[in-house]
Amino acid sequence: MNRLRILDCTLRDGGLTNNFFFDDSFVRDLYRTNVEAGVAYMEMGYRASRDVFKESDFGKWKFCDEEVIREIVGDNPTQMKLSVMADVGRTNFERDILPKKDSVLDMIRIATYSHTIDEAIDAVEHCHNLGYETTVNIMAISNDAQQTIASVLEKLAASSVDVVYLVDSFGAFYPHQVAALSRQYAEAVLPEGKQVGIHAHNNQQLAFANTIEGMRNGVSLLDVTINGLGRGAGNCSAELLAGYLMGQGFPCKQEPFIRFIEKHMLALKEEGVVWGYDIPYLLTGQGNHHPSKAIEFIKDCRTQYTDLLRELALQ
Amino acid sequence: MNRLRILDCTLRDGGLTNNFFFDDSFVRDLYRTNVEAGVAYMEMGYRASRDVFKESDFGKWKFCDEEVIREIVGDNPTQMKLSVMADVGRTNFERDILPKKDSVLDMIRIATYSHTIDEAIDAVEHCHNLGYETTVNIMAISNDAQQTIASVLEKLAASSVDVVYLVDSFGAFYPHQVAALSRQYAEAVLPEGKQVGIHAHNNQQLAFANTIEGMRNGVSLLDVTINGLGRGAGNCSAELLAGYLMGQGFPCKQEPFIRFIEKHMLALKEEGVVWGYDIPYLLTGQGNHHPSKAIEFIKDCRTQYTDLLRELALQ
Repeated sequence: MNRLRILDCTLRDGGLTNNFFFDDSFVRDLYRTNVEAGVAYMEMGYRASRDVFKESDFGKWKFCDEEVIREIVGDNPTQMKLSVMADVGRTNFERDILPKKDSVLDMIRIATYSHTIDEAIDAVEHCHNLGYETTVNIMAISNDAQQTIASVLEKLAASSVDVVYLVDSFGAFYPHQVAALSRQYAEAVLPEGKQVGIHAHNNQQLAFANTIEGMRNGVSLLDVTINGLGRGAGNCSAELLAGYLMGQGFPCKQEPFIRFIEKHMLALKEEGVVWGYDIPYLLTGQGNHHPSKAIEFIKDCRTQYTDLLRELALQ
Repeated sequence: MNRLRILDCTLRDGGLTNNFFFDDSFVRDLYRTNVEAGVAYMEMGYRASRDVFKESDFGKWKFCDEEVIREIVGDNPTQMKLSVMADVGRTNFERDILPKKDSVLDMIRIATYSHTIDEAIDAVEHCHNLGYETTVNIMAISNDAQQTIASVLEKLAASSVDVVYLVDSFGAFYPHQVAALSRQYAEAVLPEGKQVGIHAHNNQQLAFANTIEGMRNGVSLLDVTINGLGRGAGNCSAELLAGYLMGQGFPCKQEPFIRFIEKHMLALKEEGVVWGYDIPYLLTGQGNHHPSKAIEFIKDCRTQYTDLLRELALQ
């Protein structure tokens, strides 16, 4: 229990549902909510490169400029640490990551596929040398061979990274698989003084169950989003995990999350932002496909699920 | 895997969302869907007493008269067996349960609290003597002391009942608790040649995870409802479980469920029938309360969740 830390990525994964167009009152209240609830890390969004993404297509949390973050958090005079996510190939690490001493950020989370693990480790070493805590979030491993995962973990164990993340990008994993993978990750990196994190998706209504299962098998950094806000079927809900952890004697609070949902998440739904478990996400998740086809299907207001089943079978 | 059987209770638990007012085309298609999907038992509804419930307040699946069932299934010329649920104190077993030879039903599921277990066992013996398979579904055990559960299981082990059900009435249990309870149930009744069933609720998005967890710990009869239709947060979704079981090599089909959702469940939602995970159900589930306050809260279109938190704390 003492090792456990909650990481809120409502802005970052949630931003994938509305292109990061959150208004300042949402972000300000989210910051206060997370501090009050006992969240250890709040992820402010992506540090994406303007060479790759057109600025006008996205809200400011896609880029997370230093001054944009400071407008909300000032010098962050709290116990809670701040992170951004940086994708390999979509972030200009040399240009866009300031030395830690000039930044209000504490941690850079580096997202990668297993085939770009070497670039990810270069980015880790760069960010580590700048003074940051780092994580590597290996995406889409449900498509990777066991040997590939083992070799990636070996490289990470030898790197400066602080946390290695088990990521269920497609929402494809069952709890017993998460248990086995968590143990594999833990055995590979814990002896090197690193930690394991988990980032789950809710395609099969298993994001919360899988997060608990990871936690019971060596995972200590737990990703949540409030009300599960996140791409497609969304993520492990902060309010579910907080209630569970409180029951286990962990010092966090659920009520701030409930209050935030009441004030902001219902409004977001009213605005037409769509996320959460639905049949198309089940079909992509269970079939181990990227959720993009399901997201498109729902965006097009289609409900012929059996057509989607067939389309996916042909992939 | 060979022992596993799926029980569909879409009409019965789902009937709690619309007072059992399903039209015949819904029920007819559900019957066909379940046969095609490889469901072992279909529950047609309750066999409630007209002395307790006013007929005009409910659709016909609250009472499940023999001729009403036969209008849909004829003599049920399929491999799939049929059941009804009968609540202790709300069913007139002597008057309303026909001898098996005169009925198209195969199984009577007897729902009870632990404090009415003796009446439940009387009902079991009565139905058993009439020729039926029987189950006992012990409700609200999250409020029972460990000793109470042990003593109830001991009585059931000595009875003629065929299946003893682990029921998470409030959606209060976590997977590790379900694992422990499943083993306790299995150890108590398996040596007597009986089986264990599980009936989960989705208040914490755990109905599916808990059903799998039960299955991995000795449970063989698995309750589902299509699209999770059921009281409050609903149940373990048939389409989720079917997909999982297919992946494990179990001979069932997911596609019929998907087709049924496309045709009937979307229409039900359009009609205003409400079910599925929502914050009020999380709050009652995690607090180990009956969902009635959450159902009322949602029916009244209230969204002040923090008020509900306080009301529940005062209970």
